[in-house]
Amino acid sequence: MQFQDPNFQQAAEQLFARAAFPQHLGMRLTRIEPGLCGSELTAQPWQMQQDKFIHAGVIATLADHTAGGAAMTLVEAGQTILSVEYKINFLRPALGDRLRCEARVLRHGRTLIPTEAEVYAIDGAEEKMVAKAIVTLAVVTMK
Amino acid sequence: MQFQDPNFQQAAEQLFARAAFPQHLGMRLTRIEPGLCGSELTAQPWQMQQDKFIHAGVIATLADHTAGGAAMTLVEAGQTILSVEYKINFLRPALGDRLRCEARVLRHGRTLIPTEAEVYAIDGAEEKMVAKAIVTLAVVTMK
Amino acid sequence: MQFQDPNFQQAAEQLFARAAFPQHLGMRLTRIEPGLCGSELTAQPWQMQQDKFIHAGVIATLADHTAGGAAMTLVEAGQTILSVEYKINFLRPALGDRLRCEARVLRHGRTLIPTEAEVYAIDGAEEKMVAKAIVTLAVVTMK
Amino acid sequence: MQFQDPNFQQAAEQLFARAAFPQHLGMRLTRIEPGLCGSELTAQPWQMQQDKFIHAGVIATLADHTAGGAAMTLVEAGQTILSVEYKINFLRPALGDRLRCEARVLRHGRTLIPTEAEVYAIDGAEEKMVAKAIVTLAVVTMK
Repeated sequence: MQFQDPNFQQAAEQLFARAAFPQHLGMRLTRIEPGLCGSELTAQPWQMQQDKFIHAGVIATLADHTAGGAAMTLVEAGQTILSVEYKINFLRPALGDRLRCEARVLRHGRTLIPTEAEVYAIDGAEEKMVAKAIVTLAVVTMK
Repeated sequence: MQFQDPNFQQAAEQLFARAAFPQHLGMRLTRIEPGLCGSELTAQPWQMQQDKFIHAGVIATLADHTAGGAAMTLVEAGQTILSVEYKINFLRPALGDRLRCEARVLRHGRTLIPTEAEVYAIDGAEEKMVAKAIVTLAVVTMK
Repeated sequence: MQFQDPNFQQAAEQLFARAAFPQHLGMRLTRIEPGLCGSELTAQPWQMQQDKFIHAGVIATLADHTAGGAAMTLVEAGQTILSVEYKINFLRPALGDRLRCEARVLRHGRTLIPTEAEVYAIDGAEEKMVAKAIVTLAVVTMK
Repeated sequence: MQFQDPNFQQAAEQLFARAAFPQHLGMRLTRIEPGLCGSELTAQPWQMQQDKFIHAGVIATLADHTAGGAAMTLVEAGQTILSVEYKINFLRPALGDRLRCEARVLRHGRTLIPTEAEVYAIDGAEEKMVAKAIVTLAVVTMK
């Protein structure tokens, strides 16, 4: 996996710091390497669904944005990334007080960067994979 | 499309009223018919991405939950629905102050209810489709 | 939906005529309009799965290639299309002797053309939707 | 990953041996373990697209059926599996004379078994991942 921009960490950090909705959800960046991104989130009561589980929308946003972080490490200066589409499978109800996400670029294309992301729910000492996503990211040159 | 529960409207209404995260996002139910559901949301500043567009996570949550509302109209009393997986394509940046979603059941299965949802962004007098999703919902019997 | 190439019908026809695998499967083009494509296929015994139903792989190939035909009507001369990814839901077993597909472009982008496709199985006088797909097509300039 | 049926290998073998379309394509089972399945296919001229690459429909059918093989190792005697939906990303053109697929169950559910599959194209001594899929399989009790 080759990367162009020596400031790849800063690029991913800004993707997290400047995005209002991920900030509102409390998403934190925990790892940045070329083609990889890790993040986490402490679940809030307003992030639940009709029961005691974390809402699918919170899980999907974490997966999508962390995939964006992984792709962002591979673009050149002056470029950014945009989610074209994603698909996510919810593997089990997300029980716990914290979510953790790991994203990994599948292929570093010039215009498209397909990336996979796994989301884990942490309930005390127990951690379980609750969702897996494949996100297609487009490389966009900023004007 | 046949439906079992004479209280199908109430079932969909509760899916919206009792879900913390959709409530927090400001999602409102605008239409309930057997196999169909409409909803809308007035965009808040904290629902944006790093620019002036509504974040993909808000759009996807609206699509997913409205698909759930459409499926919910078709289940029996004592049953509920759960998102197994979804796929969403973002067709263009979501510019505007309001989102509108229409969901329609594709097939009323006994255990699975695949449903499609279209999301439109409303910018003054102009309305554009910004996303299309297919959601697979499972029918779950509540204990 | 605007299109650039006055020979848009020929472009879609060649996509069907020159593709070895769709030809082998017996796929026929039945309709070409800007942003729209129709096709059909008469099921062969070797196209079945372990029972009397048409195999998902045949259905998915028809959906994918017909989506390509719809997108192909919108590209410029010297360009072609390529499937980036797709998602397909199988709504019910495909019982019958013939498949029919209708594809429709969701958004005519400059580099990406998301397109949806519905597949119907025809069993005597009865026709049922058996699958729905969303396909992301990339516009590629031929060298 | 727990499995119920001591004849899990035979169950997966029959899924390959009895399916007309995968047999016609020349799919061969290369590995069966609980929750895992490997397969391969030697590309034929009629399996190509309009150029020298293996058609997406062949790749997707291999991914889907191999995912089915992986899920099949986990069901009980008298049960079978059915593809509910899948999503596949095509990472690069499939250049080569052979395809290889590895599928792995993501979650062994009682009624649904989400499974991921990776497809590699082998061109002489070189092997590259050309596609990644997530398949949702339903567990069906045979009558």
